Amino acid sequence: MNAGALKAGATIGILGGGQLGRMLALAAARLGFQCHIYAPEKDSCAFDVARRSTCADYDDWSALAAFADAVDVVTYEFENVPAKCAAFLAARLPVLPDPKVLEITQDRLSEKNFIAKLKIPTAPYASVHSATQLADAAAKIGLSAVLKTRRLGYDGKGQAKIAKGADPNAAWRKLRHAPCILEGFVNFEREVSVVAARSRDGKVVAFDVTENKHREHILKTSLVPASVTPAIAREARAIAQRIAHAFDYVGVLAVEMFVVRNGKSHTVLVNEIAPRVHNSGHWTLDGASVSQFEQHIRAVAGWPLAKPIRHGRVEMTNLIGDEIETYPKWLSAPGAAVHLYGKKEARPGRKMGHVTRVFSD
Amino acid sequence: MNAGALKAGATIGILGGGQLGRMLALAAARLGFQCHIYAPEKDSCAFDVARRSTCADYDDWSALAAFADAVDVVTYEFENVPAKCAAFLAARLPVLPDPKVLEITQDRLSEKNFIAKLKIPTAPYASVHSATQLADAAAKIGLSAVLKTRRLGYDGKGQAKIAKGADPNAAWRKLRHAPCILEGFVNFEREVSVVAARSRDGKVVAFDVTENKHREHILKTSLVPASVTPAIAREARAIAQRIAHAFDYVGVLAVEMFVVRNGKSHTVLVNEIAPRVHNSGHWTLDGASVSQFEQHIRAVAGWPLAKPIRHGRVEMTNLIGDEIETYPKWLSAPGAAVHLYGKKEARPGRKMGHVTRVFSD
Repeated sequence: MNAGALKAGATIGILGGGQLGRMLALAAARLGFQCHIYAPEKDSCAFDVARRSTCADYDDWSALAAFADAVDVVTYEFENVPAKCAAFLAARLPVLPDPKVLEITQDRLSEKNFIAKLKIPTAPYASVHSATQLADAAAKIGLSAVLKTRRLGYDGKGQAKIAKGADPNAAWRKLRHAPCILEGFVNFEREVSVVAARSRDGKVVAFDVTENKHREHILKTSLVPASVTPAIAREARAIAQRIAHAFDYVGVLAVEMFVVRNGKSHTVLVNEIAPRVHNSGHWTLDGASVSQFEQHIRAVAGWPLAKPIRHGRVEMTNLIGDEIETYPKWLSAPGAAVHLYGKKEARPGRKMGHVTRVFSD
Repeated sequence: MNAGALKAGATIGILGGGQLGRMLALAAARLGFQCHIYAPEKDSCAFDVARRSTCADYDDWSALAAFADAVDVVTYEFENVPAKCAAFLAARLPVLPDPKVLEITQDRLSEKNFIAKLKIPTAPYASVHSATQLADAAAKIGLSAVLKTRRLGYDGKGQAKIAKGADPNAAWRKLRHAPCILEGFVNFEREVSVVAARSRDGKVVAFDVTENKHREHILKTSLVPASVTPAIAREARAIAQRIAHAFDYVGVLAVEMFVVRNGKSHTVLVNEIAPRVHNSGHWTLDGASVSQFEQHIRAVAGWPLAKPIRHGRVEMTNLIGDEIETYPKWLSAPGAAVHLYGKKEARPGRKMGHVTRVFSD
């Protein structure tokens, strides 16, 4: 155990009350920790699995102060924790991963610059703050390309594709002229991700490379192991490890990557970094000897990471929006582990649950 | 799904706030249920993992009435739920397993009579309500034997061994002349248990036979699969199934059995029935594709049971009393899944946590 490691029975504060916070709290409970969930939304599904919760805004300083007094460490389930909130808490107690990681990953431009500085390949990109910059970027990168807001995009929100020959300004108008980056379109063969944990003493443990299939920009299925060569798998894991070290990261992060074919060989480009547990790691709950959620809790508690052993070939399927109504079918599917998040309203595009199936290799 | 099955998001009431209630609540949360824990002890560790709890006695009728109003079904984590409490709740909403099972299993004599009526072998036993009965029983069954109180015994409490040639009355005095049964001493080769679930529509799904090693009458380790012949494993599972059907049981039960050698062959005797999830089924959390806790929740919810697939050879070790202090060592043990129950005080004999290790076959 590290110096400063939490004692069993300590209280972990979690910012964010969605399914990731919920699954983090369930993992913390297995290890004997108490959890305190902090989230602004009244019907946060993570509230249901913890004795203590605070329903307040991220700029409610008195609620945040009371939260800080009630917990031993703070972590978060989403990357858009407001910087001021993170700083307020970090002045009072450990916030892990360190808020400086939030600062970098909340902005697509600084995230891409951070990756580029590590000499890790990404899609070509350029900053777009003005119509002139946009025209220059389009000329330099070429079309088709994707314009993305620097902040607050997820699941395809805050993105606009610019087809070959199309007017870049139309796309930018659609994004209300927010500060953006233009990214070259990557003709990838597959999308993969690496979910990795880094402990307080700097050890990195990565899960097996996961292959992800999206539908309307939302993750629909994850397959493990990914259909990539051993060399690509090694490279993908090494990239995640380098990023974790460069951040001096503590906790679980996910690195989304594109695998691109270059003639007979393949290369890996980083698409984005999620400084948190990630949907593409949900398979670990049933498909491995330790889950991403437990690894994250171990890391932020200053406890040693576990070495994951995969139980077989794994397939994770998200239940999105009204697909949740199919859960009775999944309950009877052989070998299927069903996870329902307890959300009341099945809005379109909302992640409501997932199903994991493990097949012997 | 059965008629009357709970909808996802319904609330399950759990009587009892120990580690079994805690692990039931965690399993229920995976399936999207809300839980409401009811227990008299202020520091109940199950309170920590549910948003709603009631801390009140089992004869606090107004608290019980409010609890009944707040939940959709009631289940329990321990067999000594007072009969009046169970009846009070059952008059208001479904209580599963049915309280008549409690009535039988709370009394060692009626439990043994129930098993005997099914023509399932047990140790020889006799009722002891008077000194004359005790003398007759000792003569009939022979010594050595074990005198056990009919009610409220567990983990070796409420038991007294009577050695060959010893005075049976001394043992009975030790048990304060409570109504007892005298059980013939069984020279068993091993102790095994079967944890099985039965659904509302009468399907039984049993986990693999588990071999149990006790220390000072408290379960110390469980090994799966048990070192028994395929015939004995089949017989043990068939016995659990017959008992579950005979009770018209809904939920998970555990049947503890002795394997006895008779010359070259073996026979199985039932020792006792636990009408609840059981310590010898904890291995299922990490060692199988579905846990005993989830099976129980599925059953009481009227949902279909899952078919468990075991991940390998499994070894579960209880952390009892101050053994809990060894948890840091276990956190780093390869393949070990550590469960800490979040109990504040490590009293001698108290179950504080457990560790499961899975080895590929």
